[in-house]
Amino acid sequence: MDKIKRNERLSAIARMLADAPNRIHTLGEFCELFDAAKSTVSEDIDLVAEAFRRFDLGTLETVAGAAGGARFRPTVSRERAVQALAALAKRLEEPGRMLPGGFLYTSDVTSEPDTAQLIGEILAQQYYDRQPDLVLTMETKGIPIALMTARALGVPLVIARRDSRAYEGSAVKINYVGGGDRIETMALARRAVHPGQRALIIDDFMKGGGTLQGMVDMMREFQAEVAGVGVMIATRAPEQKLVEGARSLLILEKFDRERGAAVVRPADAYAL
Amino acid sequence: MDKIKRNERLSAIARMLADAPNRIHTLGEFCELFDAAKSTVSEDIDLVAEAFRRFDLGTLETVAGAAGGARFRPTVSRERAVQALAALAKRLEEPGRMLPGGFLYTSDVTSEPDTAQLIGEILAQQYYDRQPDLVLTMETKGIPIALMTARALGVPLVIARRDSRAYEGSAVKINYVGGGDRIETMALARRAVHPGQRALIIDDFMKGGGTLQGMVDMMREFQAEVAGVGVMIATRAPEQKLVEGARSLLILEKFDRERGAAVVRPADAYAL
Repeated sequence: MDKIKRNERLSAIARMLADAPNRIHTLGEFCELFDAAKSTVSEDIDLVAEAFRRFDLGTLETVAGAAGGARFRPTVSRERAVQALAALAKRLEEPGRMLPGGFLYTSDVTSEPDTAQLIGEILAQQYYDRQPDLVLTMETKGIPIALMTARALGVPLVIARRDSRAYEGSAVKINYVGGGDRIETMALARRAVHPGQRALIIDDFMKGGGTLQGMVDMMREFQAEVAGVGVMIATRAPEQKLVEGARSLLILEKFDRERGAAVVRPADAYAL
Repeated sequence: MDKIKRNERLSAIARMLADAPNRIHTLGEFCELFDAAKSTVSEDIDLVAEAFRRFDLGTLETVAGAAGGARFRPTVSRERAVQALAALAKRLEEPGRMLPGGFLYTSDVTSEPDTAQLIGEILAQQYYDRQPDLVLTMETKGIPIALMTARALGVPLVIARRDSRAYEGSAVKINYVGGGDRIETMALARRAVHPGQRALIIDDFMKGGGTLQGMVDMMREFQAEVAGVGVMIATRAPEQKLVEGARSLLILEKFDRERGAAVVRPADAYAL
C-alpha cells in the first residue's frame, strides 16, 4: 500500500469522527488504519479540530486517559442556532398550518432529515454534560427529532407506544393526562430501559405537558433517572405545564385567526 | 482572516459534504467560504474523494453542468455490507427475541442511530438511480430506518398513520390487509405527497406484505409513483407476498422453538 498522505488522513478522520458523534475513537484505531505513529495522528486530529472550529462545524476534543482518544460532538454556535430557529419559526407561521384543537401542522418540517438533525443537535448540546444513556420519546411525530438527538448524543432511542403491540413483548403500561384532560395509555417494552439509566425525554410539541409528564412517570416505573426534557415547540398557554423544567426551542405564542396562521418565535435563549 | 490552508479546507469539505448526503454543493459555495479559486477547490474535492474511496467512506462525485458541483453519497461496499448484515443477523438470533404471532423483537436494534443509519444507507444505495422524491413508511417501528434512508437520499420522510389524527389536517384514508388477514386502516395527510412524486417505500419488517401493499395503494391515491419497496427483514414464509418486488436485507427463516430463537440470515445478495 502507498504511504498515506496527511491530506488523505485528514479527510478520513474528519468523516469518521463526524459520522459517529459523541463516541471516543482511540488514537490506536487511526494509527492502525493509517500505519502512522501516535504523534502523527495526534497532530492530524488537532488540525481537523481547528478546521471544524474555524468553520463552525462542531467540536472535536481529545479525551485523556486509558480509554482516551478523540471525540466529535455536533455543536451549533449560538449565531447559527439563532438564524436557523428564526427561519424555522417563519416556516411554521405559514398560513394553513393551523389545525383544529390548537394544534400546528409540523410533520413536514420535522420529517426533513436535515431539519430533524439540526433540531436534534441543538437539543442534544444542552445535555452532553448530563450524559444520558438513552433518549425517550412517545410515538409518532417526535421520533425523527428524538432519533437525531440520540444520534448526536451517541445513545439509543427508546419509543413509548400508545398501546402495547404484540411485537414488543411484555410491556409496562401507565395512564397519563393527554390533550383535553383525557386519560390516555402509554406502553413501553419492559426490556427497553434498565434501572439506573439516565433518560433524556424529547418530543416535538408541548401544550399541557401531560405526555411529557407521562414519560417522566414511565421512567420512574423503570427506576430510571430523567436527565432532562426537551421539545422543539411549546405553546405559550397554559403557562403552567404538567411537567417541570422542560426546555423548548420555539414558542407558539398564539393563533392569529384573521391571518389564519400561527405566531411563532424562538425561545428567549435563541432570541435575536 | 489568515489564509486558509489546504489542510483546513479538506477537513471542512469532508465534513460539509458528508453531512448533507446526495445534495449538490456548488464549487462557488466553497470558493466563497475559503476565498479560493475554483481550480483549487476542485483539486481539494478530488483529494477528499480519493481518501473516501480508499477508506470505504462513501462516494464523492463531481457533477458537471450549470447546476454542477460536488455530491456525496453514503455508499457501503459489498464487503462492509456483508460483514454488517452477518453481525446484525447474529444479534437477531439472540434468544428471547421470539414474540407471539411470529414476530421478532427488533426495536432495540433499529432504534440505535448508528444501526438505523447503516441499514438506511444500504437500502438507499440501491435506489439512488431511481431518484425518489420522498421516503414513505408506516408508523412506528420502521421510522428510524426510513428516516436514515431518507437522510442518505437527501429527501423528506413521510409517515403514514394508523389513524388520521387531528394534528395532521385533512387526510386520505384507505383500508389494507394487515396481519392475520385483518382489515386495517392507514391514513396519510393530504398535503404530504404531490401528484407525480416518486416514493421509496421503506419498513422494518415484512411478513405477508399487506402493510407495504397498503402503502403502494396509498401512493396510487395520491397519483404518486413507487420508486421501490425495501425492508430490513422479511420472513421466509409465506413465499408469496401481497406486495411485488420488495427487497429485503435479511431473511427470517423460521423460529427454532427448541432454542427459543429465530434463524436469520442475510439475503442472497449479501451472502458470504
